[in-house]
Amino acid sequence: MTDEPATSRRAFLAGTAAAGAGLVATSATAQTPDPLITEVQEWASIFGDPVDATPYGMPIEFESHVVRRNVEWLTESTASSINFTPIHALEGTITPQGCAFERHHSGAISLSKSDYRLMINGLVDKPLVFTFEDLLRFPRQITTAFCECAANGGMEWGGAQLEGCQFTQGMIHNMEYTGVMLRDLLAEAGVQTEGKWVYVEGADASSNGRSIPMEKALDDVMVAFFANGEALRKEHGYPVRLVVPGWEGNMWVKWIRRIGVYDQAVESREETSKYTDLMPDGRARKWTWVMDAKSVITSPSPQAPIRHGAGPLVITGLAWSGNGRITRVDVSTDGGNTWTPARISGDAKSKALTRFHHDINWDGQEMFIMSRAIDETGYVQPTKQALRDIRGLNNVYHNNSIQTWWVRADGEVENVEIA
Amino acid sequence: MTDEPATSRRAFLAGTAAAGAGLVATSATAQTPDPLITEVQEWASIFGDPVDATPYGMPIEFESHVVRRNVEWLTESTASSINFTPIHALEGTITPQGCAFERHHSGAISLSKSDYRLMINGLVDKPLVFTFEDLLRFPRQITTAFCECAANGGMEWGGAQLEGCQFTQGMIHNMEYTGVMLRDLLAEAGVQTEGKWVYVEGADASSNGRSIPMEKALDDVMVAFFANGEALRKEHGYPVRLVVPGWEGNMWVKWIRRIGVYDQAVESREETSKYTDLMPDGRARKWTWVMDAKSVITSPSPQAPIRHGAGPLVITGLAWSGNGRITRVDVSTDGGNTWTPARISGDAKSKALTRFHHDINWDGQEMFIMSRAIDETGYVQPTKQALRDIRGLNNVYHNNSIQTWWVRADGEVENVEIA
Repeated sequence: MTDEPATSRRAFLAGTAAAGAGLVATSATAQTPDPLITEVQEWASIFGDPVDATPYGMPIEFESHVVRRNVEWLTESTASSINFTPIHALEGTITPQGCAFERHHSGAISLSKSDYRLMINGLVDKPLVFTFEDLLRFPRQITTAFCECAANGGMEWGGAQLEGCQFTQGMIHNMEYTGVMLRDLLAEAGVQTEGKWVYVEGADASSNGRSIPMEKALDDVMVAFFANGEALRKEHGYPVRLVVPGWEGNMWVKWIRRIGVYDQAVESREETSKYTDLMPDGRARKWTWVMDAKSVITSPSPQAPIRHGAGPLVITGLAWSGNGRITRVDVSTDGGNTWTPARISGDAKSKALTRFHHDINWDGQEMFIMSRAIDETGYVQPTKQALRDIRGLNNVYHNNSIQTWWVRADGEVENVEIA
Repeated sequence: MTDEPATSRRAFLAGTAAAGAGLVATSATAQTPDPLITEVQEWASIFGDPVDATPYGMPIEFESHVVRRNVEWLTESTASSINFTPIHALEGTITPQGCAFERHHSGAISLSKSDYRLMINGLVDKPLVFTFEDLLRFPRQITTAFCECAANGGMEWGGAQLEGCQFTQGMIHNMEYTGVMLRDLLAEAGVQTEGKWVYVEGADASSNGRSIPMEKALDDVMVAFFANGEALRKEHGYPVRLVVPGWEGNMWVKWIRRIGVYDQAVESREETSKYTDLMPDGRARKWTWVMDAKSVITSPSPQAPIRHGAGPLVITGLAWSGNGRITRVDVSTDGGNTWTPARISGDAKSKALTRFHHDINWDGQEMFIMSRAIDETGYVQPTKQALRDIRGLNNVYHNNSIQTWWVRADGEVENVEIA
């Protein structure tokens, strides 16, 4: 196994040169004449779909496997469950809204813009209620941010349990949001000196209330109404959700209806019995909001095996940090004995998914592949054992440890753990 | 009319503070008690949709107007026509694939990955045929780029003709692409010294062949298979299309099947009788590939009128340049007599759509609103008259002139031309 840049040395089918436009019929020199090259194909002989066929398009039928998937036994009701982003089949950094993971506490509600209201009350000079049109009149900002469930990878605390990169690490998405800054709405209401926290809650039956310290509320928290250029989808909080860059997804309250300003945290169900980290001694850490630096190889991975033989292989994955930019991603193909820096492709935005690529010449032997992220604070993504040494095995949340995939010689990939 | 930053001075409904979680019932001091605040709503009392409801989601029903639209009389067949991006209703910089404009010359074809082949032939050392799997083995890059039809705004040469920002300027989209660089594929085949052009053609019946100078082919042209994180859509060239950053959309060949290397341009139909600029003296300019700097206000605009009265108003739009980054966008509200720099929101990537915002306090009187883009080369988007002085009225392509919207006192907006 070497880490040299990939240059293809495969023997491609060779056709002689043919000049001019139109379909090229080659006098192929290949052993097996390829009818897809030597014959006129149906799709080159017909009219395809007209432009009025799909006013709003969907993925082509051949990609029907690239969808969100849920796990039925995970919760009692699918209205309070999770489905997972098919990260094993995606590329780049943007997550399309159509396949971006969902997590609901009482299902996704239908709330029209005309029925939408947002209240700011509590320790403010002037309690306010905004209509959707009111929000459109405040200055808008754009920010790209990852939203990761605090429980992403949570099944891994007890060992490699689920197959599929989608199921083990797919509670994450990354979108470009447009909205107004929470600080501008709070300024309109006038936060009183005693106001040290905001309590944010949604319009769904669960309300999913969470407390956010005022320092964060006045920093980069956004009240968003567009994602990836278009309106939020129903299941992502249409018409308005909170974007809390770098912090656990549960705080990104959907269908947000109220922002209360208080002198202390509310200590709601969602921040006491849930979304706290159970430690080995039985105590629970609370206020663990930030999602620490993490990465995962998305391909090859279980669900994305190698379908070709030895030779050039693209290893790719995602890295992210709630504390800022990703500055480096290392990849190991030998179970963590040696590491090589991967290429970071495109932008490495702060608190956003960052794509890495690592091109190798695969020798066709089994590999144990891993990635580890380093962010601008110098933090290095830990091993699973290092995390267990501190947090034990009882935890559900905040597993940002290194994920290992076993690539077998036949190209199939399994979720494993290295002792 | 002033251009001061917007600070809201509207009288919002005021409710008294109410502490604690749960639905807040206000003792409202507003003249008209708002039942959406004072009563428990249905959506706060039910289970919403479960997570297995939408494996691949679509926009919510309330957004069903935000779709591509075509104009039936534009071409003889809708298989060789255009539909337009609803840019008046979008925000941010990304265009969702589902509503990104289409232009076909013989319709959108269904071509599976297993049936896909890409040939490189002509003046190369080793003619090659790639399968889709072959392409996945080359090093991948990410690039975000706008794709604009050369005829975008073409109806405007003869004066303001169509209503709707979508129909006048909507032949554009902006996506994050992942693929392999054309230069890497050409290097694999080995371009011979005499090879000065590539001729690229698609697998559809039209073939839509275009010549590209070798200098561009070896620079930033990408053979792309992902857009906005997922597979290309059928109508955008699934499984593989060409991305030619900054150059007219017709050259972004979809379902690309062949790249021929030649010592001269092919001078195909698509680059002689079409996609050339007819000048006043009857001659046609050819090889006008670059899309010069341009901008348009997307809201307010026809289809996106002002629904509220005087006071804070967000003016927003898009700017782009085929020659690099947008460095400034000016906005005028008085028909071009005075100009004020707008805010550029988010990134201003090279050869990609750039979002601008301009916050004003609207006095409720009529306005003639315009935007003009300036790019990193110092180029300033011209007036329509300046462009006509050189190119006359016979042209169809490359209208990058300033667009004027007439905002009436009642908030309705019309497409107009200022003499």
